[in-house]
Amino acid sequence: MLFENIAVLDEGGRAAAGKYVGVTGERIAYIGDTAPAEDFGETYAGAGRLLMPAFYNAHAHSPMTLLRGYGENLKLQDWLTTRIFPFEDKLTGEAVYAGTLLAVAESLRFGIVSTTDMYYFCEDMLRAFLESGAKVNISRGLTCFTDAELADLPGFQEAKRLFETYDGAADGRVVAEMSLHAEYTSNPKIAAQLAEYANKTGAGMHVHISETKTEHAECMARRGGKTPVAYLASLGFFETRTTAAHCVHVTEEDMDILARKGVTVASCPISNMKLSSGVCNVPRLLEKGVNVAIGTDGAASNNSLNFIEEMKFFALSNKLMREDPTLVSPADTIAAATVSGAKSQGRPDCGAIRVGAKADLIVLDLSVPNMHPVHALANNIVYAAAGGDVRLTMADGKVLYRDGSYKTIDIEKALFEADAATRRIRGELGEQNPA
Amino acid sequence: MLFENIAVLDEGGRAAAGKYVGVTGERIAYIGDTAPAEDFGETYAGAGRLLMPAFYNAHAHSPMTLLRGYGENLKLQDWLTTRIFPFEDKLTGEAVYAGTLLAVAESLRFGIVSTTDMYYFCEDMLRAFLESGAKVNISRGLTCFTDAELADLPGFQEAKRLFETYDGAADGRVVAEMSLHAEYTSNPKIAAQLAEYANKTGAGMHVHISETKTEHAECMARRGGKTPVAYLASLGFFETRTTAAHCVHVTEEDMDILARKGVTVASCPISNMKLSSGVCNVPRLLEKGVNVAIGTDGAASNNSLNFIEEMKFFALSNKLMREDPTLVSPADTIAAATVSGAKSQGRPDCGAIRVGAKADLIVLDLSVPNMHPVHALANNIVYAAAGGDVRLTMADGKVLYRDGSYKTIDIEKALFEADAATRRIRGELGEQNPA
Repeated sequence: MLFENIAVLDEGGRAAAGKYVGVTGERIAYIGDTAPAEDFGETYAGAGRLLMPAFYNAHAHSPMTLLRGYGENLKLQDWLTTRIFPFEDKLTGEAVYAGTLLAVAESLRFGIVSTTDMYYFCEDMLRAFLESGAKVNISRGLTCFTDAELADLPGFQEAKRLFETYDGAADGRVVAEMSLHAEYTSNPKIAAQLAEYANKTGAGMHVHISETKTEHAECMARRGGKTPVAYLASLGFFETRTTAAHCVHVTEEDMDILARKGVTVASCPISNMKLSSGVCNVPRLLEKGVNVAIGTDGAASNNSLNFIEEMKFFALSNKLMREDPTLVSPADTIAAATVSGAKSQGRPDCGAIRVGAKADLIVLDLSVPNMHPVHALANNIVYAAAGGDVRLTMADGKVLYRDGSYKTIDIEKALFEADAATRRIRGELGEQNPA
Repeated sequence: MLFENIAVLDEGGRAAAGKYVGVTGERIAYIGDTAPAEDFGETYAGAGRLLMPAFYNAHAHSPMTLLRGYGENLKLQDWLTTRIFPFEDKLTGEAVYAGTLLAVAESLRFGIVSTTDMYYFCEDMLRAFLESGAKVNISRGLTCFTDAELADLPGFQEAKRLFETYDGAADGRVVAEMSLHAEYTSNPKIAAQLAEYANKTGAGMHVHISETKTEHAECMARRGGKTPVAYLASLGFFETRTTAAHCVHVTEEDMDILARKGVTVASCPISNMKLSSGVCNVPRLLEKGVNVAIGTDGAASNNSLNFIEEMKFFALSNKLMREDPTLVSPADTIAAATVSGAKSQGRPDCGAIRVGAKADLIVLDLSVPNMHPVHALANNIVYAAAGGDVRLTMADGKVLYRDGSYKTIDIEKALFEADAATRRIRGELGEQNPA
């Protein structure tokens, strides 16, 4: 495909108009001010449009789309015990597949091509990602409340099988990782054994860290004064590529460890705001050189996967909480949503528009009123764009979504099946289904 | 128009499917479970769609769309003195018209039919509202830094002419009001004289109150310990229908006054977050019985007029700041965006779907992935919908926007003129225009 006469966002967040960008196979092969000599097949008329890197969602639980709007305005503990856990208890592989496919469809609509995802029924999740052409860093979130050995845990067996079978599958679209759900849902033996396995195999790691004040404080009480970051570091964590989700309550010393170890912090501003958890100190992390990416978290606590909206919350929440409007620039925000997210997923050739990079691209409509006038396009992208302004989403050179249509997903069937799975579970829980 | 087989949101925030809603002239004439006997003209196929009340933007400065993205990530004082004031100094009536028409186009796209607007060059603003078929509560923001009498201020003369000429114009679409910009940009004499004029004529009043901590504290220092609310009350304010924008730092006693006087608080969550001002205590105001509505503020500090997004910030910001996820329900949020906004504008027959009410309606697309599944539709509207999901916007029974097309605005011309006015001003300020 050749994008003709289109505005292009460069790596510094500046836009240049009237560019030509050619895609061959899965990569960007041409960027220029004039039409190329070679034939790139289909042309895309780019007037009034912006080509920019697609988004990388650095922390999600895709199947939780089925719980979108199921538990609202509840205290965390009520929310979990009266809504989330009972519903999740009724999930099946088919339901997880349906929820994941719904999440992928929504993600593509909002420009996300790749998702770092922690859940269970992972092979059912994978089917949805593989069929749709989207990318995933998938992991089985491991919990353990007994004295078992790691090798005996069914969750680890699933994780190991996933890693051995699928890591690098589909031309690298699939990355399979290890995941410790969290410090408070595991014990030192399991955590250390999992870290050892990851360090030995080179598997990436995905873990929730210091999402709530309570979790952070209780860890310190339980683990001899160690914060979750210090505790996990002491057990051998952070030696392979790691994504630490939330990190709302990490300390200065924690941040130094994260920086030194090259850990990515996946900030989830909407979920953290909705659950009253707080605001991750993004500006301080960036100052310390930490790679900061953006996550939607699950749809149960967001409740959308609208990355355009997520960028605005990301850019604004620190301004509010630290009473300083100069914090978190549009350029910082776009970097977190794109290239830093790709880096967090171990996809170094993704997240920027340059010759040779994977063609993970989106087209934003600049002809809508909210994108006028233009003083600086990066400002409009972060502060003024709407989710529905994404007109095309391409992963590895393949158009997966365009103008409301899906190229790889039967959207009516996907919506029907997600609705049906939800109604089935509501029925089993004795809840009336809405008309 | 007859909306056929459509879901309808009732006044309690519940949705019923398969309804028929007929509009005759400017009002809703039929609501039923079956097709009506009478002929309503054009039919609208409502399957997979939701009909709900349109939005009322309770605080805006529409022409500031021209400054969208012009000053970013600056401290308030820098932002005002180095960006906003110099740009505003170059505005002309034509530029204000162009900026307002852009704002109306954006508003209609995001479901807003009516805007409470405070600015200057008001007759140029009015042209845009009148041409487009949108509604406006318009006021000339009055400031005074001298010892002049009210009657001698050109701003008041403009306000008075506006009120005498246009209040109630266009079948009530136009409401003309008085406006004191703020306590800190005026003096007691002018404020008292303006209140006296409003009380004598019954004109509505629009005023900024306690937006920032500094403003609130400096007022108390300057006005013998009186907060902005107490100070204005002592000068005769709040005796006519009044909208108080922001109210981020009002006290318990202030809230009691606002409740007793029936003042509407227009909360502007995005602008307050972006400028690091704080979060209006919506749950406490609602507890006290204050009418709370939602405002976008100007696009310079938002930077969009995306009311769907504004609802999400409204619902989430108090959860964060008061560390309580139970605060501000979806039903509270929808009421603030619709019926409470209409009430704030003195439009008692607007903001709800009932026979006899003005047909100010929007259609939301329920077939997009982010609106599936449905546990409770109000939850999806507030937490999961995207701005671009608005498919139709109708004011007083007239379709003004549908599926990306404008019925009363030449959108290409409007975008061109807003861009041209902006480039002209940037040129005069010696700033390079982006390519």
